[in-house]
Amino acid sequence: MTQDTLTGADALVGTLADCGVTACFANPGTSEMHLVAALDKEPRIRSVLCLFEGIATGAADGFGRVSETPAMTLLHLGAGYLNGGANIHNAKRAFTPMINVIGDHATYHVRYDAPLTSNILGLAAPNSVWIKSVDDVKRAGTLAAESVHASMTGTTGPVSLILPADSAWNPGGVHAPVMDVPKASPASEASIASAAQAIKSAKKPMIIINGDALSEAGLSEASRLQAAGVRVMTDTFVWKQARGAGRFAPDRMQYFAEGAMADLEDTDLMVICGTQMPVAFFAYPDKPSVLVPEGCEMVTLGGPELDVTKSISMLADELGASEKADVQPRTAPDKPTGALTPVTVGASVSRHMPAGSLVSDDGVTASLPIFMSTVTAEPHDWMMLTGGAIGQGMPLAVGAAVAKPEAKTICLSGDGAGMYTMQALWTMAREQLNVVTIVFVNHSYRILNIELKRTGAGDPGPTAQNMLNIGTPEIDWASLAKAQGVNAENASTAEEFDEALERALSGEGPTLIAAHMAG
Amino acid sequence: MTQDTLTGADALVGTLADCGVTACFANPGTSEMHLVAALDKEPRIRSVLCLFEGIATGAADGFGRVSETPAMTLLHLGAGYLNGGANIHNAKRAFTPMINVIGDHATYHVRYDAPLTSNILGLAAPNSVWIKSVDDVKRAGTLAAESVHASMTGTTGPVSLILPADSAWNPGGVHAPVMDVPKASPASEASIASAAQAIKSAKKPMIIINGDALSEAGLSEASRLQAAGVRVMTDTFVWKQARGAGRFAPDRMQYFAEGAMADLEDTDLMVICGTQMPVAFFAYPDKPSVLVPEGCEMVTLGGPELDVTKSISMLADELGASEKADVQPRTAPDKPTGALTPVTVGASVSRHMPAGSLVSDDGVTASLPIFMSTVTAEPHDWMMLTGGAIGQGMPLAVGAAVAKPEAKTICLSGDGAGMYTMQALWTMAREQLNVVTIVFVNHSYRILNIELKRTGAGDPGPTAQNMLNIGTPEIDWASLAKAQGVNAENASTAEEFDEALERALSGEGPTLIAAHMAG
Repeated sequence: MTQDTLTGADALVGTLADCGVTACFANPGTSEMHLVAALDKEPRIRSVLCLFEGIATGAADGFGRVSETPAMTLLHLGAGYLNGGANIHNAKRAFTPMINVIGDHATYHVRYDAPLTSNILGLAAPNSVWIKSVDDVKRAGTLAAESVHASMTGTTGPVSLILPADSAWNPGGVHAPVMDVPKASPASEASIASAAQAIKSAKKPMIIINGDALSEAGLSEASRLQAAGVRVMTDTFVWKQARGAGRFAPDRMQYFAEGAMADLEDTDLMVICGTQMPVAFFAYPDKPSVLVPEGCEMVTLGGPELDVTKSISMLADELGASEKADVQPRTAPDKPTGALTPVTVGASVSRHMPAGSLVSDDGVTASLPIFMSTVTAEPHDWMMLTGGAIGQGMPLAVGAAVAKPEAKTICLSGDGAGMYTMQALWTMAREQLNVVTIVFVNHSYRILNIELKRTGAGDPGPTAQNMLNIGTPEIDWASLAKAQGVNAENASTAEEFDEALERALSGEGPTLIAAHMAG
Repeated sequence: MTQDTLTGADALVGTLADCGVTACFANPGTSEMHLVAALDKEPRIRSVLCLFEGIATGAADGFGRVSETPAMTLLHLGAGYLNGGANIHNAKRAFTPMINVIGDHATYHVRYDAPLTSNILGLAAPNSVWIKSVDDVKRAGTLAAESVHASMTGTTGPVSLILPADSAWNPGGVHAPVMDVPKASPASEASIASAAQAIKSAKKPMIIINGDALSEAGLSEASRLQAAGVRVMTDTFVWKQARGAGRFAPDRMQYFAEGAMADLEDTDLMVICGTQMPVAFFAYPDKPSVLVPEGCEMVTLGGPELDVTKSISMLADELGASEKADVQPRTAPDKPTGALTPVTVGASVSRHMPAGSLVSDDGVTASLPIFMSTVTAEPHDWMMLTGGAIGQGMPLAVGAAVAKPEAKTICLSGDGAGMYTMQALWTMAREQLNVVTIVFVNHSYRILNIELKRTGAGDPGPTAQNMLNIGTPEIDWASLAKAQGVNAENASTAEEFDEALERALSGEGPTLIAAHMAG
């Protein structure tokens, strides 16, 4: 096919493939039919159908976090963007590069205000680090290349590439050259020297890190700071962290402000590297918003745009930190017994999760004990809900498993969170993805029972209690999974769960375990 | 409780109740806890929990269409708004009044850019007819009253009322007085006279109507025009239309441009009343965007802000139209036999649907034959997907059934459309709503198989075909429903379906029929 017979859709898809895009998570509609046709001709991109746009965008986030290259999505006009929007919000908070390709009406058709017409630029701009519309077919390739560059440069994140239908179907599309993505820079030598000086003067210094420093190599550098007396912490919610045996385990900022402030007591210096000042997830009456002790000095080396590992390494050099803190050993717990709780689930995950696994954590109140139990599990990567919009777990697991099909992906989901986007199970079955989904069935928005008290909203009466209870009727998770082609089991004791998890992880393809939690 | 102990949340909820709001469809989070507490104390509002925001907003649309008063929703910050956004888009296209109450971070907390922080005003503005944030607790009641007024005045539709957490929990809330909603006005006498003049001069005049003229009374007035030789048509997709025995049945604008243009051949005058100029749903290469024959004169009496029934009545008077066109008789088809098709489903619905039923139509390619078959069914109201964002059917049915619990609500849903928002089934079970959901199981995005050809995107190869096929794996709809507490049956022949529907409509509470379509 010669260049001048390419449509705009062909040029856009082909250029994205040239730029290294290898996966497309799609929920197309009429205005995306030429994009579907272009994907049909592009063997370098694996097209994965999702039954709801929130699955597609969550999957692109998971793919991007694991592969560290952007996936594309196909979304249907403004309404499709809205359906995918919450997981784009989450991806933006994880700084995940992703290319959201949004079909729009033909440019000449917009003025007639047909039913699906919407202000796509207005809707998509707040959660896009870059947004442009291909209003001229000749620009389809150029803007595709630019979109990839934008998603991977500086503060990385989701971009929106809008393709009007006439720009999709008209001939005249041209492949554009790939744009080089500049390497991130570390903090300046002057700011490193100044941070080192502050550390030397502090009694109880700490550094809070995120970004590329949560890789095995980055954590290894960070452990030099820990060995030199600088407490290393991560944000409460991280995009991806290398964990388990052989890795240095930093502390984690606590979720609730009162716990965080107690934990940080007497800290007199906080160095920020690859993230921002720690703040409370929500405000509460008479509780602090900023999680920095009074009188604590703050030194900022830079945000997510930084080469964080290199910055940490330079800081360790400046401090003359030649030792490293200990890495975690591998210690497998005994088979848990009795009531099924987050702690026993954590023991089972730690026992059975194979090396190289990926964890997609949307487990809300159940997650922390499992996170703690797995610090000495086999080496694995743990991905969290960075943006707070629940319903990310299963979609993220889809994308993670597409990015690394040979690994086991373990999805931890609350039952409330899982009901947002459980259509992801169908895509797991269709693509036979190696995902084990664990749903914590406690029949409630348990976090809200805690928050209702913390916000001082008073003792819940029957209406309020009813609004936090999702157990009437009970949701049969095993049936929901089987109805979408995913094997499933119920587990109600620690032993049952342990055995179910062992079976699930020794098989191929997707499984769901409905974990009926005690209490 | 005296006024000065009211919180902002109390004042907001209480004022909405004063203004006649009687239902709240909610998916709350931490920032909405004081709103939940306020609803706990407000017996005039029925709180209905939904497991996904798209259910809540679709339900508010259904409630608003049936009761013709706004329901409120509770949405959790920008991410919650995004999840509910597609059905708000649909509601805006139906001009349905609804009050979307969006919790936000405390005003002083926004600056810290916590994970759930987002540009709510930016995200919500495009699909809101009014949007304000309660940045001062004393204004909570006033803005609540204003929001109801705005949603019901002029071009009615969804409004966004943002409540920051500190405005929710601070004392100082004050109930505000209810604001009178002005009655809509008809078209001016001069424009009526001029339209009548144009009609008298035309050979083949028609009028296209929507809005309140689709009520039984409005259609009765419109039938005077039909009897006077003016063809009466509705938009392709209408918010709610009175249909069946005893009602005048206008023609309907066809979906595909080529069909519509053939149908309108020789039409030399088009009067627009309560809607806008008819346009194609999508643009296609070399097909028209505007569904108006060449040389056809256009006369616009006004858009959705109009008192359409009164305008039609005045026009009929001006034309001296004293007769009315015939209304539909009741004719019940025989029990259908053989293969299960949209035509046989239509016969069964026409046979068994009781008088006063509500239909929520998100049936995509299956809908038209059922719509046609039910023109002589018992009197009922039919509600359509006005905004084109599939996934509206089941949520809309939830709201319709809450608004009119004594009626049977029949939900028609494609299997592709149904998978967007099938969490609505759980709310149907929880509230024991009288909804019979019919899912047309054809294992494909069938409309897209048609559209792929119409857009000229070429013959689908394996990847493209795969992107339109949702039958691998097959989705077990009956199990999906039962897993959420809804009775369900499978039907694979016309006879099986007819009997299943008869059973479903003779019982109480929700049922789902998985209609396995032939061919």
